[in-house]
Amino acid sequence: MFTIFFLFALVFSGSHVAVQGYCVADLGAAQTTTGYPCKPTKSVKIEDFSTTLQPQNTNFSKAFNISLSPAFVGQIPGLNGLGFAAAKLDLFAGGIVPLHSHPDASEMLLVTDGKITAGFISPDNTVFVKTITKGDVMVLPQGLLHFQLNSGEGSATAFLAFSSPNPSAQFVDVALFASALNSAFVTKTTYISPAEVKRLKGVFGGQG
Amino acid sequence: MFTIFFLFALVFSGSHVAVQGYCVADLGAAQTTTGYPCKPTKSVKIEDFSTTLQPQNTNFSKAFNISLSPAFVGQIPGLNGLGFAAAKLDLFAGGIVPLHSHPDASEMLLVTDGKITAGFISPDNTVFVKTITKGDVMVLPQGLLHFQLNSGEGSATAFLAFSSPNPSAQFVDVALFASALNSAFVTKTTYISPAEVKRLKGVFGGQG
Amino acid sequence: MFTIFFLFALVFSGSHVAVQGYCVADLGAAQTTTGYPCKPTKSVKIEDFSTTLQPQNTNFSKAFNISLSPAFVGQIPGLNGLGFAAAKLDLFAGGIVPLHSHPDASEMLLVTDGKITAGFISPDNTVFVKTITKGDVMVLPQGLLHFQLNSGEGSATAFLAFSSPNPSAQFVDVALFASALNSAFVTKTTYISPAEVKRLKGVFGGQG
Amino acid sequence: MFTIFFLFALVFSGSHVAVQGYCVADLGAAQTTTGYPCKPTKSVKIEDFSTTLQPQNTNFSKAFNISLSPAFVGQIPGLNGLGFAAAKLDLFAGGIVPLHSHPDASEMLLVTDGKITAGFISPDNTVFVKTITKGDVMVLPQGLLHFQLNSGEGSATAFLAFSSPNPSAQFVDVALFASALNSAFVTKTTYISPAEVKRLKGVFGGQG
Amino acid sequence: MFTIFFLFALVFSGSHVAVQGYCVADLGAAQTTTGYPCKPTKSVKIEDFSTTLQPQNTNFSKAFNISLSPAFVGQIPGLNGLGFAAAKLDLFAGGIVPLHSHPDASEMLLVTDGKITAGFISPDNTVFVKTITKGDVMVLPQGLLHFQLNSGEGSATAFLAFSSPNPSAQFVDVALFASALNSAFVTKTTYISPAEVKRLKGVFGGQG
Amino acid sequence: MFTIFFLFALVFSGSHVAVQGYCVADLGAAQTTTGYPCKPTKSVKIEDFSTTLQPQNTNFSKAFNISLSPAFVGQIPGLNGLGFAAAKLDLFAGGIVPLHSHPDASEMLLVTDGKITAGFISPDNTVFVKTITKGDVMVLPQGLLHFQLNSGEGSATAFLAFSSPNPSAQFVDVALFASALNSAFVTKTTYISPAEVKRLKGVFGGQG
Repeated sequence: MFTIFFLFALVFSGSHVAVQGYCVADLGAAQTTTGYPCKPTKSVKIEDFSTTLQPQNTNFSKAFNISLSPAFVGQIPGLNGLGFAAAKLDLFAGGIVPLHSHPDASEMLLVTDGKITAGFISPDNTVFVKTITKGDVMVLPQGLLHFQLNSGEGSATAFLAFSSPNPSAQFVDVALFASALNSAFVTKTTYISPAEVKRLKGVFGGQG
Repeated sequence: MFTIFFLFALVFSGSHVAVQGYCVADLGAAQTTTGYPCKPTKSVKIEDFSTTLQPQNTNFSKAFNISLSPAFVGQIPGLNGLGFAAAKLDLFAGGIVPLHSHPDASEMLLVTDGKITAGFISPDNTVFVKTITKGDVMVLPQGLLHFQLNSGEGSATAFLAFSSPNPSAQFVDVALFASALNSAFVTKTTYISPAEVKRLKGVFGGQG
Repeated sequence: MFTIFFLFALVFSGSHVAVQGYCVADLGAAQTTTGYPCKPTKSVKIEDFSTTLQPQNTNFSKAFNISLSPAFVGQIPGLNGLGFAAAKLDLFAGGIVPLHSHPDASEMLLVTDGKITAGFISPDNTVFVKTITKGDVMVLPQGLLHFQLNSGEGSATAFLAFSSPNPSAQFVDVALFASALNSAFVTKTTYISPAEVKRLKGVFGGQG
Repeated sequence: MFTIFFLFALVFSGSHVAVQGYCVADLGAAQTTTGYPCKPTKSVKIEDFSTTLQPQNTNFSKAFNISLSPAFVGQIPGLNGLGFAAAKLDLFAGGIVPLHSHPDASEMLLVTDGKITAGFISPDNTVFVKTITKGDVMVLPQGLLHFQLNSGEGSATAFLAFSSPNPSAQFVDVALFASALNSAFVTKTTYISPAEVKRLKGVFGGQG
Repeated sequence: MFTIFFLFALVFSGSHVAVQGYCVADLGAAQTTTGYPCKPTKSVKIEDFSTTLQPQNTNFSKAFNISLSPAFVGQIPGLNGLGFAAAKLDLFAGGIVPLHSHPDASEMLLVTDGKITAGFISPDNTVFVKTITKGDVMVLPQGLLHFQLNSGEGSATAFLAFSSPNPSAQFVDVALFASALNSAFVTKTTYISPAEVKRLKGVFGGQG
Repeated sequence: MFTIFFLFALVFSGSHVAVQGYCVADLGAAQTTTGYPCKPTKSVKIEDFSTTLQPQNTNFSKAFNISLSPAFVGQIPGLNGLGFAAAKLDLFAGGIVPLHSHPDASEMLLVTDGKITAGFISPDNTVFVKTITKGDVMVLPQGLLHFQLNSGEGSATAFLAFSSPNPSAQFVDVALFASALNSAFVTKTTYISPAEVKRLKGVFGGQG
């Protein structure tokens, strides 16, 4: 009865100009301003839409006592063009995510364990700081300086959501003290004393 | 007098980094999240901006007694990036466009012949159904389940507009009964009885 | 069995912060840069999603021998925010849609009767002109100067689609010769002779 | 030394036309096509950027044995305009999120406890189903039919992220069998038998 | 102390799927609807983010007595995807930028020297004309016909900003009289007399 | 001859649902996520599309020896929704625009006088610094930390363009040392020594 059915379906699913409601990233191709080119529909598989978050010791930063496991477009190519991503953040005792911003994404923090103090500062210089625990959610708007601290006794864990499939991050200390930015420029544009700049360049291993 | 004119025009039309107010699809290249790469400006021709709708027996579905002739980016490469497309829909006597949605486009229906009953259901479960005839227009918002029925005596024809140059469609019956989706999942997630699922899998030729 | 069902549905349909997959225009409220504010969901009705195209003598222009019946957001409030609109265009014998552009929308032309010659010019000054008849479709990219002429014997009719729910139009002659733009400016910026500017100001009723 | 500083800051933070990098929803005002108008900056407080997910028995659906606690713009007004949201989903033993789609958002699922089988069907009718456990992440693209099942022994929990601050949802069964959609239309557009439609209308409490 | 630091930074900066907060145009690659593909991050250099405006005699139009030096994506590849561009415009004594529109960009004019009369006409045919001098700024909305005249004694200079990294321009005279558009079409769609069309075709060197 | 002309124009210019190709900000109304509501078309005047940049001593910061005169939506309501803005920046001898970012806009710098050293740091920690003089243009991508220094002898002046009609700015020092952010948080999240934080809190007048 329905043998001619597929001809009709074919029109809508678009034959060689197919849109399938997604555009799975061809991670090997050059990016565009809006993400990756799509890989061919016939090579798309379930693995393109899922990943497994890594154990805590992956991407562990001894310096900050934290670890991050991303579920970005690099891990889930099917996120390409969908406008969001996620991650898991572990802050061990005393763990700190230093002052930073995401130039291209807002962030949500959903605490699953422990106690985290998170804060951001707005352009009119209002400070928004809150200590949150299991079940609490907090949003950190795009491009604004913010931080997270483990303010409890043991470890703390949070899921993160981002409003970009491939969010970038800029850490103030890394930009100033781990880069090749000339120390004189750092002092002039931040008013931090030359001695302190020198000390921090040493700590972070920056040049200049 | 105006011999130097073209030098100026050249600056604005952009020489090798030309923007011409359009980006005609290079249909052979890999898509991006926003459409196709542009073919070279010098190979663009009038045919890239036009097409002829097909006769009624093209893309005819005997099962549903309808035929559809698209004017999407696959037929008109100049639609690439312009955010809309069109089509002609013929519903022969008793013709039905079964329950479906367009994940990436809203739809408009402009009736030119006959009598069509169209309807959609909103997320708060309000039913919007109307029988429309020649000269009537109806809009079906993006992502919502909708249908069209020939509710007259003879044939009915409508022009369709879509808010995407390459709209996709998902038919509920096709997704459930013509796919490889396991029958147990169908029953569990739709509460349709196993017997009815089996019958419909048979009708639509689905597996699982 | 399903008495508690609606509690769940309520969460997703959003209670007082409801999104229903559409935002029907409150046409009496002030517009924003992206359209109209939404009218309350409970006052939305099927009429908000449909309209009837007007007879040919509505919006008839004796000067150009054409008539236009829009299905824009003003006629179909449910188009608000959906990114497209439609219209019916009648060109009687000798009818002309003079040179114009749509600053905020691309246009598609689907001919249903008669013979229409349509054309546009690209920024690199390529001319795209085609004579199209019943069943032909042509696209006219956003912001580019274009025109339509009835090039057949009798009347011609076309459906139009636009990539904006509320497209604007700027006619070159109207802007230059029906406005208050000073004739000296017209001559200086178009190189049309003062005598011809004067004649056309007279024809179109412009001042200055 | 820096007494004149604030004059400069004032220019950038914009005085009465201030942009603060966010637009906290005035939930009492009429929505626009892009979200809520902003409440005045001076009334913004830390509570606008955070919420606490509710206990499992909130928004509990006895019918499906699931509960959902949203962190949408209704709960976190600071999400307004930021393009994403989150939620917590509990599936108790045998819990099911029936077949549905989100017309305006993609979804991510991050499992924190138990075993969940999730699936979606693409417009070209490919079935993507996967059973995921703690630490697994899966994405469900915008507008496509999908479901989640508790496929383990005990309860299962997942965090959800959405690519909209106020995602809507359309459940197929609710649309067909809990609405006022005429049973004849349901049968005609889904090919489900009249008897089965009648049974399901009874179960879901629909009219028509 | 911070030796493990970079592992963490690496996650966020994204390794081979890096986003760096910019997408420098690979000008040799095919454009997409949203700009150019990005060149590899490691080949990005400071020159990609800057340019030097050309002397006044570059891109000089003897016909209009003006010169234009663009800082578009062709000159600054780092503008790709950033949504804006700039230019310097010199109008020598009597210099005129003839009636034109930018189909894909709004324009701002910041006068640094001399006296310029600028004007645009809105779709409802209101004329907005103003004579501006050093320190004055004027905006010309996207897609609307506008012009600039040197209305002072000596030269005039202005900086231009555009809301597109690669704005196109369409000059009415060029489109009508320097193109291959048939003179009969010009007369029919603009009501300019055949004699005047012939004269202007001669002046601008158009065919047809 | 053209007496019926205006009826046709009326349709396109949209009567009470008019779009005029612009949406002039009603600065007294509540903002939305995409800008201001539009003021009524009939009250729009030429002044809505222009402004005059202020003398150098306006918005002068004695602390940084700079002054800024914005041409944002607050000064030019017609910029509303157009996606860009401009400003004039004067850096007197030794003038500095301290380290900051624009969360919602990229910036272009066009030097008209003097010598400016500008720099930004990318998320992968590459430093892009350049000393530019009259006629040079440099782009500073959205959300990235950057600075400008007068590196010449006398004053320096630049025009700025932004990719937002109402760009915000976040200065690192202001956020850390002029705000109420607790000094302990500053030290923990930036690794700047408590003594230096105390000193800078004193200089900038911050609390906490």
